[in-house]
Amino acid sequence: MVRWEPGARERLKAAALELFARQGFDGTTVAEIAAAAGVTERTFFRYFADKREVLFTGQEEFERDFVDGLGDAGEAHPMAMIARALDRAAARFPDERRPWSRARQDVIDVEPSLQERELLKLSALAAALTRALQLRGVDATTAALAAESGVAVFRIAFAAWIADGEQRSLPELQRATLAELRALVDTV
Amino acid sequence: MVRWEPGARERLKAAALELFARQGFDGTTVAEIAAAAGVTERTFFRYFADKREVLFTGQEEFERDFVDGLGDAGEAHPMAMIARALDRAAARFPDERRPWSRARQDVIDVEPSLQERELLKLSALAAALTRALQLRGVDATTAALAAESGVAVFRIAFAAWIADGEQRSLPELQRATLAELRALVDTV
Repeated sequence: MVRWEPGARERLKAAALELFARQGFDGTTVAEIAAAAGVTERTFFRYFADKREVLFTGQEEFERDFVDGLGDAGEAHPMAMIARALDRAAARFPDERRPWSRARQDVIDVEPSLQERELLKLSALAAALTRALQLRGVDATTAALAAESGVAVFRIAFAAWIADGEQRSLPELQRATLAELRALVDTV
Repeated sequence: MVRWEPGARERLKAAALELFARQGFDGTTVAEIAAAAGVTERTFFRYFADKREVLFTGQEEFERDFVDGLGDAGEAHPMAMIARALDRAAARFPDERRPWSRARQDVIDVEPSLQERELLKLSALAAALTRALQLRGVDATTAALAAESGVAVFRIAFAAWIADGEQRSLPELQRATLAELRALVDTV
């Protein structure tokens, strides 16, 4: 099934997702995940703080991609910086990752505590983008509006990307969503 | 100090906010709030499920104002409906309420669990507006974009409204923020 023997981290992620899908998030223990991945519990905890974090690993890198993608200060308009950040962040979600992201969402959709965790993650991203734009000389209100709009575009495009049957790439969907936001707001 | 003897509910809200501000949210008990308001704990629980809910009371009415403010199906453009909903919801926050909202925010700002509760409240509002727009015939992506934009405008305008020294009304600030969003997104 796999072309190369994946490392423990990837095996743990795959095993956790399969168990969460089959027996529920609450009904799955770290011991079961470790056993299914063929490692010890101790190894599990070398990679993840708890079973929830298997689904939220990489948040720092995710935020850093967004913030780095803004580019340098004073170089471009705030929304152009946000558009670039969206493109950069989407590189983390190539189409090969779509099945994993879909399975992950199915687990989150039936577990309110995971939905809250996802919401906090995106809220932290908006706060990080707001701060980063302010550091690049954008005033507070504009920075907050640009950051919140960018995160809304990401969230909505990402939901479309993992919808059944969707074929377009995440960057394509993000650009289409940003264009739609522009058309929508333009009519006020 | 007050022109009329307020009811138990208002006395409880005022007493709770004063205690939270003075001795912290965690450091305040329901018994203390009830005593400060001159009522029994039993009376407290007739009005509020717990001390946290004193700060989040009226969420259903708040959401209903927004949704009712959208108006009827097919009558207007989605962002025009959102603009009307913002105006309607702002009626809940006349300038007399600003000191209370400021004091409430000061309590929330130092307590992460209250910040999460506020975030969930606004997320629930965005979901309610998305559903309501879809029920009015707006497609899913446009509904989500319009709802998320509307909530972002509310959140940013509300933060400005309670900032030190701000004199403008909430409806004024919301309209200015919506205009800024339009100008911002227009340049993509």
